[in-house]
Amino acid sequence: MSAQFSVDNTHRTQLGPIATPDRLLLGPGPSNAHPTVLQALARTPIGHLDPLYVELMGEVQELLRYVWQTDNRLTIPMSGTGSAAMEATLANTIEPGDKVLVAVKGYFGLRLADMAGRYRAEVVTIERPWGEAFSLAEIEAALEHHRPAVLAMVHAETSTGILQPMEGIGELCRRYDCLLLLDTVTSLGAVPVRLDEWMVDLAYSCSQKGLSCPPGLGPFTMGPRAEAKLAARPDKVPNWYLDVSLLNQYWGSDRVYHHTAPVNMNFGMREALRLLADEGLESVWQRHRSNAERLWAGLERLGLTLHAPDHLRLPTLTTVRIPEGVDGKAFSLHLLNTFGIEVGGGLGALAGKVWRIGLMGYNSRAENVDRLLNLFESELPAFRPSASQAAVAASV
Amino acid sequence: MSAQFSVDNTHRTQLGPIATPDRLLLGPGPSNAHPTVLQALARTPIGHLDPLYVELMGEVQELLRYVWQTDNRLTIPMSGTGSAAMEATLANTIEPGDKVLVAVKGYFGLRLADMAGRYRAEVVTIERPWGEAFSLAEIEAALEHHRPAVLAMVHAETSTGILQPMEGIGELCRRYDCLLLLDTVTSLGAVPVRLDEWMVDLAYSCSQKGLSCPPGLGPFTMGPRAEAKLAARPDKVPNWYLDVSLLNQYWGSDRVYHHTAPVNMNFGMREALRLLADEGLESVWQRHRSNAERLWAGLERLGLTLHAPDHLRLPTLTTVRIPEGVDGKAFSLHLLNTFGIEVGGGLGALAGKVWRIGLMGYNSRAENVDRLLNLFESELPAFRPSASQAAVAASV
Repeated sequence: MSAQFSVDNTHRTQLGPIATPDRLLLGPGPSNAHPTVLQALARTPIGHLDPLYVELMGEVQELLRYVWQTDNRLTIPMSGTGSAAMEATLANTIEPGDKVLVAVKGYFGLRLADMAGRYRAEVVTIERPWGEAFSLAEIEAALEHHRPAVLAMVHAETSTGILQPMEGIGELCRRYDCLLLLDTVTSLGAVPVRLDEWMVDLAYSCSQKGLSCPPGLGPFTMGPRAEAKLAARPDKVPNWYLDVSLLNQYWGSDRVYHHTAPVNMNFGMREALRLLADEGLESVWQRHRSNAERLWAGLERLGLTLHAPDHLRLPTLTTVRIPEGVDGKAFSLHLLNTFGIEVGGGLGALAGKVWRIGLMGYNSRAENVDRLLNLFESELPAFRPSASQAAVAASV
Repeated sequence: MSAQFSVDNTHRTQLGPIATPDRLLLGPGPSNAHPTVLQALARTPIGHLDPLYVELMGEVQELLRYVWQTDNRLTIPMSGTGSAAMEATLANTIEPGDKVLVAVKGYFGLRLADMAGRYRAEVVTIERPWGEAFSLAEIEAALEHHRPAVLAMVHAETSTGILQPMEGIGELCRRYDCLLLLDTVTSLGAVPVRLDEWMVDLAYSCSQKGLSCPPGLGPFTMGPRAEAKLAARPDKVPNWYLDVSLLNQYWGSDRVYHHTAPVNMNFGMREALRLLADEGLESVWQRHRSNAERLWAGLERLGLTLHAPDHLRLPTLTTVRIPEGVDGKAFSLHLLNTFGIEVGGGLGALAGKVWRIGLMGYNSRAENVDRLLNLFESELPAFRPSASQAAVAASV
């Protein structure tokens, strides 16, 4: 070997083949992917300009329109996770100085506000406690007062388990000449979402929840009013990777190279959407609803308290209050290490206060609900303060 | 089914299972992934905060340091393609008004200039024709004249097949107090890259070339001088998804949630890097060199002209001039449709003038070289003008 090829081996770790375990992911996401989707990921890549790949792109777009119930032309999966798609909605829409009203009722509302500020929006917020939703009157008052260019809000708050009622909000946004931007990360493909009926102008989601795909793609959609704002902006979008005016030249009929698409992730997305369309959205929504109700009833039967009020409860993500004196983190680690089941902890204002249980996509099945309820019943008592005091007393 | 679940089926396309073909990808990328990497993609996802995933993150970081030959602490795969990692180097480094000097000798230099402008840099460029490299004297003259905060350049220009000699550039950048930012998209894991020896402050790459992974991740690294500039900036990074100060809280010891990692892609990346470290960088570099030489000699034996001069030729990507009168696009479509082999066309200034042949990672093998050379020998004559005139004459 010649000197030109000499190498420093400091960081050359010796590893064995990958040996990750099979987990049942019942936290806030990622959720388990459908086995057929996983097999699609392992297919030989094809070129991002291959005529067969271009055909697949069209299939993905069309089925995303179906799950979102929209006719939006600009409906594509962003080549990043849900957070990238979230940023894409803001980056393409906000011009410096635009007023953006963010309705914050949990962690992801705060994230929208942070991101919007980075695009030099004048950010104003309205807030509700973590575990409540906004009324139409509150939203109207804020629109009237602030007169924003964009209202950004979260349909399904993954941090609180709250589903925001959407009736009437789109009409208000039209009346106040404001774009409506909606986070559907934890609702798409699982809970009724009707973008066009709700008059939503911009929305985003992720691949790893209702769609039963691994994380890595961020579905994005933009309606005609948002497209018009983008077309009229005088400057370049201040984010190259997420610039929809460029992406549209690749996803549209021109097929101009923008970036090398994550083709294998899109193989998975195509299969995930195909399976979802085969089942049909009505059945999918119904299945999520009934499995969630089975979980809620079971948890309450065990004497646990659900954090979200019944009428605002999100079928995909349930927040359960950690009982007084229980170390919630220790219990979820026990479930992970002993049974291979992941359950999430609280975020932000709910850190240490709730567990977050996800029933999303492929994982929304009665057998998963029953398995988890059985474990709550058999394993939780040992983590209650009386039990540990009893254990201490017994060991003395 | 209740009315609340009624659905519009306009976009509910009926599809059969995915049936993409096995291609041999000998274009500019994506390249074929190693079969072991593809199998890793199909593993059951685990949580992005699972202790076993956190361990895997550390393995990926350490082996990226090895392939880049750097000790940089901040070495991570960005959750997007190579273009996202490219943007990350600029977004985290540029403050509004910073002067950024871009050395443009092909398509990806132009992209760097476009992106830098979006972060409100004062962008200045030096240029070389598409098929040449910069001399040290040219770079020094530009640094002296412009006094930029950042010099951005491309090590391996995928659009031209040119490898930029790096000796001495890092020293110049230190002397002129300028950060050195390097595109290693088509060199990492295939051609000698020695970031620390070359005094490179920021670099990025992709997953789908030398690393033998599908596209979807963008390796990123940042040295201490670039970290210091980031730490001193008074404003937030104007890109939330790529903000390294936030990402470092997830990849560093705090493990603070930022976004849901594309875990399956990282399973693949971990396996790709493990296989590369098993083979050893010296062997990998040597293999790419010898297979490229085999290709070059074979193409010249067939009377074809290589676009890049011998001493600047990139082992991973060869630009071959399309012979006078040949429809280059028709020939590459013939290879794709008849033999399942992808070869690339020219980009930008070289559109219609060259084919681009990639031998990268798993695909850099003598059998692939020989297969392609045989097809050039047997199939190209029919696309030469004399042949088609002969065919026309024969059909009359």
